[in-house]
Amino acid sequence: MDNSFFQQHISQQFNEELEDTLQKVMTMGGLVEQQLADAVAALVEGDSAKAERVVTSDYRINDLEVAIDDECSHIIARRQPTATDLRLLIAVIKAITDLERMGDEAERIGRMALHLLERDRNHSPIDELASLGEHVRQMLRGALDAFARMDSDQAVRVAQQDIQADSQYEQIMRELMKYMAEEPASIPRIMDIVWSARALERIGDRSRNICEYVVYCVKGKDVRHTSFDQMAEQATGDRR
Amino acid sequence: MDNSFFQQHISQQFNEELEDTLQKVMTMGGLVEQQLADAVAALVEGDSAKAERVVTSDYRINDLEVAIDDECSHIIARRQPTATDLRLLIAVIKAITDLERMGDEAERIGRMALHLLERDRNHSPIDELASLGEHVRQMLRGALDAFARMDSDQAVRVAQQDIQADSQYEQIMRELMKYMAEEPASIPRIMDIVWSARALERIGDRSRNICEYVVYCVKGKDVRHTSFDQMAEQATGDRR
Repeated sequence: MDNSFFQQHISQQFNEELEDTLQKVMTMGGLVEQQLADAVAALVEGDSAKAERVVTSDYRINDLEVAIDDECSHIIARRQPTATDLRLLIAVIKAITDLERMGDEAERIGRMALHLLERDRNHSPIDELASLGEHVRQMLRGALDAFARMDSDQAVRVAQQDIQADSQYEQIMRELMKYMAEEPASIPRIMDIVWSARALERIGDRSRNICEYVVYCVKGKDVRHTSFDQMAEQATGDRR
Repeated sequence: MDNSFFQQHISQQFNEELEDTLQKVMTMGGLVEQQLADAVAALVEGDSAKAERVVTSDYRINDLEVAIDDECSHIIARRQPTATDLRLLIAVIKAITDLERMGDEAERIGRMALHLLERDRNHSPIDELASLGEHVRQMLRGALDAFARMDSDQAVRVAQQDIQADSQYEQIMRELMKYMAEEPASIPRIMDIVWSARALERIGDRSRNICEYVVYCVKGKDVRHTSFDQMAEQATGDRR
């Protein structure tokens, strides 16, 4: 990766190991993004082939999580990294947990899409999910990009997009509840949409988590459990 | 901790550091367990003081997460552990993430309890949550106990209790949907109960995660993404 964040190490091989690990994280992130896009398309367009693919492809993400985790442990044991390198490896270990769980959320949406196909999906308020789905997919992509380039400014910008994701989600939830009240017979299938919206909202939260790890990596400052303003302040501050 | 898992290190101070870290994890786990118990009591008994306490106490859990994370990084950088010790530290880093998120779920339940108090909570089917809440609280306690003693057999037993948690949750969900259909005006407050049930179910999942880290620590085998049977097989196998 062409980035000043990754200083040259005495050992060229160490450098290569770190870059290989980051490359795998990006591959894993790409798979999650694809799963998410397929899941939302399956739901919104009622595409059963895509839904089936999402439900049966999650194992690839899981396998990568286990492989990367293992690789990080081996690098730590063998290279005994400190400071920035160690922070990076710990950030990777945390980020892949979030990515794997996002994969689970996408799988959940895929299953809901299949459920809905068995019911009367034509009369369900699904369209609103397309916009939320696109928003959180862009958050995920932005978070991965910030991670790859260790760009804390971008990480802050992406994290702030979670405010809009939450407000879109709240709006969808109000509409879904109204719909259920007006048409009680629709409740089981509306609940499938509720779970899908929730899954999307969680993917936004987890993209934000990844952004927080970037700030931790670059600045050495833990910005979890802080406000967006505090996060921005830490991200623009001096490097420790 | 009096346990053969923790071998004596050349450095007595290293031993003390590891034990101190584990002690902090247990303190954090105890706080989460208390938050969970208070949240369920607040919900089921309509106790607003308890609900307020849950909502305002989460920061203590968050602070501990940041402190333990920091401590683990410092131990890794200073002591350069390998094998079992490194696995333990990585397991701690993962486990506290789950504990922190369980704290968030408890806080969510506390907020739902406050919501419900503003509405007509007397006519809401809340009682069923008491049993699920108690079940996942026992799972959490069992998982923490297995972690403290690094007992992989107990970890497998606790993880298997997640099957019952999931089936209780499904049963509650079916009842709540029926209730909403029969009384559409109740939908907003029933949704508060839906989110609470979901939060409890997630706490069961995360207790199971902690059990998986115990098996990883003790056996060096990654049992995430495997069936309960495979997990039991790995846990009883020889130590790598």
